[in-house]
Amino acid sequence: MRNFSRDHRWLSLNTATVRQQGDLAQIIEACARHGIRAIDPWRDQVAAIGLDCAVRAVRDAGLELSGYCRGGMFTSDGAHRIEVRDDNRRAVDEAKALGAPCVVLVAGGLPQYSRPGSAASKDIVAARAQVHDAIGEMLEYARTARMPLAIEPLHPAYAADRACVNTTRQALDICDALDPKHAGALGVALDVYHIWWDPELLPQIERAGKIIVCWRSMSATGWCRPRISSTTAA
Amino acid sequence: MRNFSRDHRWLSLNTATVRQQGDLAQIIEACARHGIRAIDPWRDQVAAIGLDCAVRAVRDAGLELSGYCRGGMFTSDGAHRIEVRDDNRRAVDEAKALGAPCVVLVAGGLPQYSRPGSAASKDIVAARAQVHDAIGEMLEYARTARMPLAIEPLHPAYAADRACVNTTRQALDICDALDPKHAGALGVALDVYHIWWDPELLPQIERAGKIIVCWRSMSATGWCRPRISSTTAA
Repeated sequence: MRNFSRDHRWLSLNTATVRQQGDLAQIIEACARHGIRAIDPWRDQVAAIGLDCAVRAVRDAGLELSGYCRGGMFTSDGAHRIEVRDDNRRAVDEAKALGAPCVVLVAGGLPQYSRPGSAASKDIVAARAQVHDAIGEMLEYARTARMPLAIEPLHPAYAADRACVNTTRQALDICDALDPKHAGALGVALDVYHIWWDPELLPQIERAGKIIVCWRSMSATGWCRPRISSTTAA
Repeated sequence: MRNFSRDHRWLSLNTATVRQQGDLAQIIEACARHGIRAIDPWRDQVAAIGLDCAVRAVRDAGLELSGYCRGGMFTSDGAHRIEVRDDNRRAVDEAKALGAPCVVLVAGGLPQYSRPGSAASKDIVAARAQVHDAIGEMLEYARTARMPLAIEPLHPAYAADRACVNTTRQALDICDALDPKHAGALGVALDVYHIWWDPELLPQIERAGKIIVCWRSMSATGWCRPRISSTTAA
């Protein structure tokens, strides 16, 4: 981190961090005004101004996207699985319309928290199996749309309520299983806030190599843009 | 957990959990009265009534110990290293006097939190190396005293301030490196509160096998007593 760059080419604003300051159109206008050239918008912010309006605002401001937040929340009971699948397909469609380079996936924790209304369960092993299968299913749809997916491991403190994918190793194991040739369809989104504590941090970043799709160095600011190499990251 | 035992032979009270209700002599008296046959006392509670008094109280009540909490807090700056070493040697001596089966080790996080007064550092890799070396040094002393040491991995949420040993794998790697023949000098203390989220939980418990020295199923209650097998634990 000593060589942290002042070069704004690598900066992308995660628009959730300025949620209180304005709607997505206002955020985009402010980014353009301040020389921030990329954003990572959130689905609810896009929905609030409408997808078409968001697409136009991004294009008119000449911004790039570094990702689209977020797909996932895969864990649910049986009654909610079609809803989960369709919701994630819409995320892919929206990302495509916006010109995002990937959909960032937050896996979901236990079903009752990820998809409220689901029957309660404490079976995190089952939740993880469900995440694995659901990413596999979403990947088929995303491949057809040529939209990469980026699995974001979240800090273990969020294992129950937000994401049961909690280490870089775990996320990469899913990538290896579902996209074994590393053909670019599936990667990881790494946020230092979530992974800094990991005793395996550096070897797992090295392992991630070219399938790091996004990189976030400070949770409160934004995502770095894609194409960062593992050497730079480490 | 469905087969969680009602058999009190496995129950040991972690005396920190009733710190507000009385001093160690009163806790021991209450345990004897309620049929709790083992405790895991804390150093500050022993110090508060005096080691000799604690030794007598345990013996007179016919209690066993399941461990002694806690050694460790190994991370410090150079000016505090002798203090750290001597403090941990005293923990071994006290455990021996009390008849404890092991000293539970909480590694320490960054130096300024583990040993206040130490120069601040954010280098968790260096902290981990220091923990490794300090356990090695303590182990020489503990071997002479025939006092096993049990490394307790703490939840990653505590990585900065309390323990930079955060997974069962990491604790077992230290055991493999420092006690490669698993001769009983070094093991792990596993607390479900700290490790439940780990995607590698079951294989690492299997790996731990006979070197699980302590096992704690609910942080708020107490430690299970030693000699639990990995099969029972899993």
